[in-house]
Amino acid sequence: MEFSSKLVEQAVDQMNSLPGIGRKTAFRLVMSLLKREEKAIAKFVNAILTLKKEIKQCTNCCNLSDTELCAICMDKNRDSSIVCVVEDMQDVIAIENTKQFQHHYHVLGGVISPMNGISPQDLTIASLLERIQTKDIKEVILALSTTMEGDTTNYYIYKKLKDSNVKITTIARGISIGDEIEYIDEVTLGRSIRNRILFELSH
Amino acid sequence: MEFSSKLVEQAVDQMNSLPGIGRKTAFRLVMSLLKREEKAIAKFVNAILTLKKEIKQCTNCCNLSDTELCAICMDKNRDSSIVCVVEDMQDVIAIENTKQFQHHYHVLGGVISPMNGISPQDLTIASLLERIQTKDIKEVILALSTTMEGDTTNYYIYKKLKDSNVKITTIARGISIGDEIEYIDEVTLGRSIRNRILFELSH
Repeated sequence: MEFSSKLVEQAVDQMNSLPGIGRKTAFRLVMSLLKREEKAIAKFVNAILTLKKEIKQCTNCCNLSDTELCAICMDKNRDSSIVCVVEDMQDVIAIENTKQFQHHYHVLGGVISPMNGISPQDLTIASLLERIQTKDIKEVILALSTTMEGDTTNYYIYKKLKDSNVKITTIARGISIGDEIEYIDEVTLGRSIRNRILFELSH
Repeated sequence: MEFSSKLVEQAVDQMNSLPGIGRKTAFRLVMSLLKREEKAIAKFVNAILTLKKEIKQCTNCCNLSDTELCAICMDKNRDSSIVCVVEDMQDVIAIENTKQFQHHYHVLGGVISPMNGISPQDLTIASLLERIQTKDIKEVILALSTTMEGDTTNYYIYKKLKDSNVKITTIARGISIGDEIEYIDEVTLGRSIRNRILFELSH
């Protein structure tokens, strides 16, 4: 795709640098922005700049936050004795959307991945350990992805915590709602038979 | 999707306002931007701001341009006696990519669409007529989409030009490369039989 305008090309290049945005889509997005009033474009741009400049890390759970302590950690109605360990903000939102969890989180900021050069020191594991030592935490729920990196991180945290008094749990792994038995991978199916639960009429 | 941070929410809202970008994608794009250095974000933002501020309309063909006269109109190797009328810059790029056209363009900036409140006065038709009157143009190729709006615009321009000396052509309509006869709509198939051409071994 060749442009007769360098200005358009630069803007498309930048838009194209975002994940999952191909060159044609980037061009369409740039044209759509260009059609807006200058004021609307300033609003678009300022939202991004302000986010980068003003966003903080919650001093308790390490999630992205507007304030020193994030809205979840500040919520007096939540029980802070249970902490759910997740990879990033996206996972916090996903769990919040279930409306099944009224406790606290700890955002690692990633998972251990030697391939990508991410070691435990790059994550907020030290701050999780400190939190457990200094605060009254009864249970840590490990809610990381079921990938090799997620499992490695789970194991690393488990090893660090196993001698403390805290209860360590992990979210249930099994078949999803709507799954057909014949298409489920054997590891998941095997585990869900081994970890079977008492039948209830509604979950 | 609920965010615990207003700053994140504002940025996601803005990204979400782009065409075809859903809320989840918007969040992913914002997170990807947030991970970048401030310098890289400034580059992203500046490309958009500079485009809006500095982009001009070519005084000859009305295409988006960095300069008074666009790169295509300035190209001495191009024959300016044939003008291809298109809807927008995207169409110029599409035709340029075919490498089959070494002449000039005229960018209408849209098509006549009463439904969307776009009348001939909103397009650059007057400037096209002036161009034909004042410059040595032998042929005008109408290359608009085969939609009702495109056809209306074609007809409007044809009516305006039919008394002048200029030859009016339109790009060939027929079956696409790779089309299977049985799946082609009857209007296209009917036309492509009526407008059949002499068989050549390679087109």
